[in-house]
Amino acid sequence: MKENIIQPMIGLFVAERNASSLNELLSSWPPAEIAELIDETEDKEERLFIYESLSHDIAAHTFEYLELQYQKEILEELPYDRIPEILNEMSADDRTGLLEELPPHTVSQLLAVLSPQERTIALALLGHPENSVGRLMTPDYTAVHADWTIQQTLDYIRMHGSNSETLNVIYVIDEKGYLIDDIRVREFLLADPSLKVEDIMDHKYQSLMVDDDQEEVVAKFKNLNRVALPVTDKDGYLLGIVTVDDVLEVVEEENTEDIQKLGAVEVFDEPYMNISFALLIRKRAGWLVILFVGEMFTATAMGFFEDEIAKAVVLALFVPLIISSGGNTGSQAATLIIRALALGEITLRDWWKIMRREILAGLALGTILGFIGFCRIAFWHKFVPMDGKPAYGEHWLLVALTVSISLVGVVLWGTLSGSMLPLVLKKCKLDPATSSAPFVATLVDVTGLIIYFTIAMLIMRGTLL
Amino acid sequence: MKENIIQPMIGLFVAERNASSLNELLSSWPPAEIAELIDETEDKEERLFIYESLSHDIAAHTFEYLELQYQKEILEELPYDRIPEILNEMSADDRTGLLEELPPHTVSQLLAVLSPQERTIALALLGHPENSVGRLMTPDYTAVHADWTIQQTLDYIRMHGSNSETLNVIYVIDEKGYLIDDIRVREFLLADPSLKVEDIMDHKYQSLMVDDDQEEVVAKFKNLNRVALPVTDKDGYLLGIVTVDDVLEVVEEENTEDIQKLGAVEVFDEPYMNISFALLIRKRAGWLVILFVGEMFTATAMGFFEDEIAKAVVLALFVPLIISSGGNTGSQAATLIIRALALGEITLRDWWKIMRREILAGLALGTILGFIGFCRIAFWHKFVPMDGKPAYGEHWLLVALTVSISLVGVVLWGTLSGSMLPLVLKKCKLDPATSSAPFVATLVDVTGLIIYFTIAMLIMRGTLL
Repeated sequence: MKENIIQPMIGLFVAERNASSLNELLSSWPPAEIAELIDETEDKEERLFIYESLSHDIAAHTFEYLELQYQKEILEELPYDRIPEILNEMSADDRTGLLEELPPHTVSQLLAVLSPQERTIALALLGHPENSVGRLMTPDYTAVHADWTIQQTLDYIRMHGSNSETLNVIYVIDEKGYLIDDIRVREFLLADPSLKVEDIMDHKYQSLMVDDDQEEVVAKFKNLNRVALPVTDKDGYLLGIVTVDDVLEVVEEENTEDIQKLGAVEVFDEPYMNISFALLIRKRAGWLVILFVGEMFTATAMGFFEDEIAKAVVLALFVPLIISSGGNTGSQAATLIIRALALGEITLRDWWKIMRREILAGLALGTILGFIGFCRIAFWHKFVPMDGKPAYGEHWLLVALTVSISLVGVVLWGTLSGSMLPLVLKKCKLDPATSSAPFVATLVDVTGLIIYFTIAMLIMRGTLL
Repeated sequence: MKENIIQPMIGLFVAERNASSLNELLSSWPPAEIAELIDETEDKEERLFIYESLSHDIAAHTFEYLELQYQKEILEELPYDRIPEILNEMSADDRTGLLEELPPHTVSQLLAVLSPQERTIALALLGHPENSVGRLMTPDYTAVHADWTIQQTLDYIRMHGSNSETLNVIYVIDEKGYLIDDIRVREFLLADPSLKVEDIMDHKYQSLMVDDDQEEVVAKFKNLNRVALPVTDKDGYLLGIVTVDDVLEVVEEENTEDIQKLGAVEVFDEPYMNISFALLIRKRAGWLVILFVGEMFTATAMGFFEDEIAKAVVLALFVPLIISSGGNTGSQAATLIIRALALGEITLRDWWKIMRREILAGLALGTILGFIGFCRIAFWHKFVPMDGKPAYGEHWLLVALTVSISLVGVVLWGTLSGSMLPLVLKKCKLDPATSSAPFVATLVDVTGLIIYFTIAMLIMRGTLL
């Protein structure tokens, strides 16, 4: 809405490189909206011009709302003396996220410009393993002691709270710094100011461990409906907090990883449009070559049945139909199981229940497809002659039977391998999402051919074969 | 940790149906943990026993942390007179989520037991379209006026704030109820109590529209790093707020939908283990039948080349290899583009850039696979005789050329259709995720066969054909 009126003016100021008018126009905007404006500007020079036209304090606040790729761009292009104010102003967790993405020598240069205090914080956060809670946390929280009064606490928050990433939850620690409670700020507001903190404590708190995997954090936030959770070491010493906005980003990142794996692509760490062409090819070629080599066994398998194909060419016509049906049902089953595992809806202990279910599902789906396949061949035989003769010759019934029985077998096999493979991978401590749709399809293709030709030999022996 | 010590005791009390000891043990637990205990209990009777053993107020608080399926179960089994306290206690947005899932006649029964005030709220929320912001919001927020002092505001919050879903953000409305600002509670805590609210207002706020789609909300929360956002009608009248914990659930739900569509399954609204067998089959059979009917064209296409196959059976051997390579590259491309669209990394305007990129990628990937295919055939010809003769006869070089050139063509075609199809669907206002991996694979299979046999006829005319 705002954009419709002001967009042309911004465009004009940028085109004219009129920094002072642009500065004035943007000075009343919230930093998040300025960041959005920059994110949406396509030209690199224009992006930099907008950023540099901002007043220093607005620029520093805007920086952390920018997309990572533009943060990098600006760090490269901005005068060196403006970098400290930006980095010192960023919240510690977002800064860690940025530093993670930069090459090591840039990181050490940037660490050097931080104030000693912020440098200590940055180094501590970078010391935790990637994908651990430690990388998400920020040390900017507010902690109070149990023997303070509510009024003392409120005064303390008023004086010292302005650096906190969130004031929604206040932490109570003992004199050594160990966490003993978390209290939502509303409890302080709702309580009688003359009470002591310990009077409103319930000694129940939920916390994260600094070495926990980020995936577990997502589940915890979802179950507990919290906006922030404290992070402790294994002895309960309070180290920092994690806020829910960072968790939202973790969720999106993880889902992207799962989806890319399902599509048989190595995980991209960058947006599609930003990744270099060489990397784009490398990330895709790896899996494609593996699948291709696996799929070569179809040529070997079909080689074994070359004589049968020569005798009954009609068999070859249905090869793509048969194997793709196995592949499709396999992809479906794999997708369902992988997602249910990721959401914690099923666990490895359920394998037998799942297997029983998928066997029944495979039989039902195979019967549906087999029936349609049978009708298709019968219909073509009756109404669609090839070169004036019935399409599938005098033995059309045998062909129809072979195809439909094979479909039941192949679909059953597809469903079963598609559903069990993710569980096997999980059991072997591998990522279930690796059993991508194309991976399952390749596996089912080779075995599907063997099922098809074996059934053909059984049914057609003495007639077509 | 807690579980390791207490789990056996809980198990014992449940087995003995010792309600009073269980009640005592659980009385100090946070509701979220009790809910987790119930969610993880496998036996239905035991779940109900645990829930019924809780004191009434703990039971009411625990209810909203339970998974939806167990909420439904408990509503069905619990004595009728205990239902009002539970529903009246639930936060309005979670209650809407529950009511959405129930059959209409149950909903009207449940609405009847609500207090008049809560019933009005529930009906208003249910009046908004599904997947709109209206369904996510809660009317439990705290609003104040601009001419109040900070101290008055803090006193007001202390008196009336206990029903608010969040006190992290306080909303400022004018005398008619229109939203004029949102102020984080920290600003009140950090300000001098004698100032007026209008002194700390910045008249900048971010809000959601009640009819907005839930997907847009996710993007907004991610960009703005907020824990709650106000919801207004199109005139700016404040209707409620949306909190970030509900947004986390929307994100997971949407990603599940996208993933299931990518796997060619109709979207499940229930966890895998809870969905009935009939529904499981119906959700899967729909797409499978569509794909199967599409795939039937492969039999038709191959029928046209029946004479060629009869003359050179060797051609049939490579059919699965060729078409699956097209399908795999197509799935990859579709997955990448669908995800990039969902994350807003690309838009329809980028189609030409994407197409150029994917054509180059298709050529590169096709050349890699074509080269490997050529080597495989040459190697087999030289070292792996079939029945004492070279595997692919005297014309092996023609076979190798046909296969590798076809691979380039089919992979290029797969990449191109996989990347363009999601964009075409988006342009037609359809969900890009519908162009699932199996869907693209089917499309590419039929055309891949035509490419393969056409190239074979061009290369082998006069020799094998």
